[in-house]
Amino acid sequence: MNSSPASIGILGGMGPAATVDLFDRIVRATPAQRDQDHIPILIVNDPSIPDRTAAILHGGEDPTPRLAAGIGKLAAMGADFIAIPCNTAHYYLPALSANTPIPLLDMIGETVDAVRREHPAVARVGVLATSGTLAVGLYQNALRAGGLTPVEPTPAEIEQMMDAIYGPQGVKTAGVTDAAHRGLQAVGQALIDRGAQVLILGCTEIPLALHGGDLPVPLVASSQCLAEAAVRVAFGS
Amino acid sequence: MNSSPASIGILGGMGPAATVDLFDRIVRATPAQRDQDHIPILIVNDPSIPDRTAAILHGGEDPTPRLAAGIGKLAAMGADFIAIPCNTAHYYLPALSANTPIPLLDMIGETVDAVRREHPAVARVGVLATSGTLAVGLYQNALRAGGLTPVEPTPAEIEQMMDAIYGPQGVKTAGVTDAAHRGLQAVGQALIDRGAQVLILGCTEIPLALHGGDLPVPLVASSQCLAEAAVRVAFGS
Repeated sequence: MNSSPASIGILGGMGPAATVDLFDRIVRATPAQRDQDHIPILIVNDPSIPDRTAAILHGGEDPTPRLAAGIGKLAAMGADFIAIPCNTAHYYLPALSANTPIPLLDMIGETVDAVRREHPAVARVGVLATSGTLAVGLYQNALRAGGLTPVEPTPAEIEQMMDAIYGPQGVKTAGVTDAAHRGLQAVGQALIDRGAQVLILGCTEIPLALHGGDLPVPLVASSQCLAEAAVRVAFGS
Repeated sequence: MNSSPASIGILGGMGPAATVDLFDRIVRATPAQRDQDHIPILIVNDPSIPDRTAAILHGGEDPTPRLAAGIGKLAAMGADFIAIPCNTAHYYLPALSANTPIPLLDMIGETVDAVRREHPAVARVGVLATSGTLAVGLYQNALRAGGLTPVEPTPAEIEQMMDAIYGPQGVKTAGVTDAAHRGLQAVGQALIDRGAQVLILGCTEIPLALHGGDLPVPLVASSQCLAEAAVRVAFGS
């Protein structure tokens, strides 16, 4: 490398296991042969950020002040830009970006870009995400803007997916369980049956329990797209 | 929980994969059923910290100023105490503690305590660690102070272990490889052959490539002991 990489700030805790996973994906995606080749990374893992889906759909506490506080803390520590490993939190990205001194990466946009780049022949894209992310159309709008057709889960499938993320056997509650894996796989298969040629894993907990090869179409993990974008931006390329 | 947990500061980057691993172990060791039950964690992953073994053994750049800077940054961000997932860096712990506003956990002491608590009948303890950690006797001294007998690698075995950590197929260079796994397993077996009843994995890269069941005696990973201590201290228990 010709110059030192920029510092990545990760605003995490939504949830903590997904934050570990993004950190891991960034370290693995970094071309490095010794500690000193790696990218400086600053992390605020703030699990007290109010639940994003609850705020969007059920009048829960607004997470914006705590999200803004975390971003401010990362900027003060020396982060050059910010990655937020929570898709639902991206609903607040426009408001946060307007009041933030450093750039915020857009995981939704990076993921849709990756689908178009890696799967140029695909037209119909399934979206696995939380009810909050789906209700505000984060992926549907970005896909349509990119000329792609979203394939969305039904209300019953959304409930099944939320159970795999938030339920008693869900990833946030119990870690990676067989029940969570089976639930996500079933919803993914239903989207494929309705024509999805690729699936976006549009909640950062989902790739913890659903992996490439689990379904007969390619899976594009939003967290992997965010990690690759962070490495690219850190090295200025 | 009756009250909010304290904030853990992780001073990492030595190396980054070992820092991901400590973060993962802390999240898994936390009794939590939703994001908001988790512990606030702040991480400075500073891969530019000069190599600790090179400084101790070969007159390399002193890492103390950058270690102190990272601790200062974590304290300023609101960390209540600090965990450092690098055993060799613990050589500098007395100097760092003397100039630090918040407590630093002692991974060496926590690991030896865990050996005594979990394996009370054991007398002879093998130590897998870097040449720097071994040369300054971090584990040997702590084991002897606890009434235990250290079983140390020979110079040839230390070279084999350093190759598994720093070599072309080592964990820091190439991730988890078969060569690194085989090298660490061979050195561990040699210590067992010389009487070790338990092995301390006293370098945070080692548990990435060597796991319980790989050898016929219990393995005590220093990073797991540090993670459990951090969770205990965060909850004030």
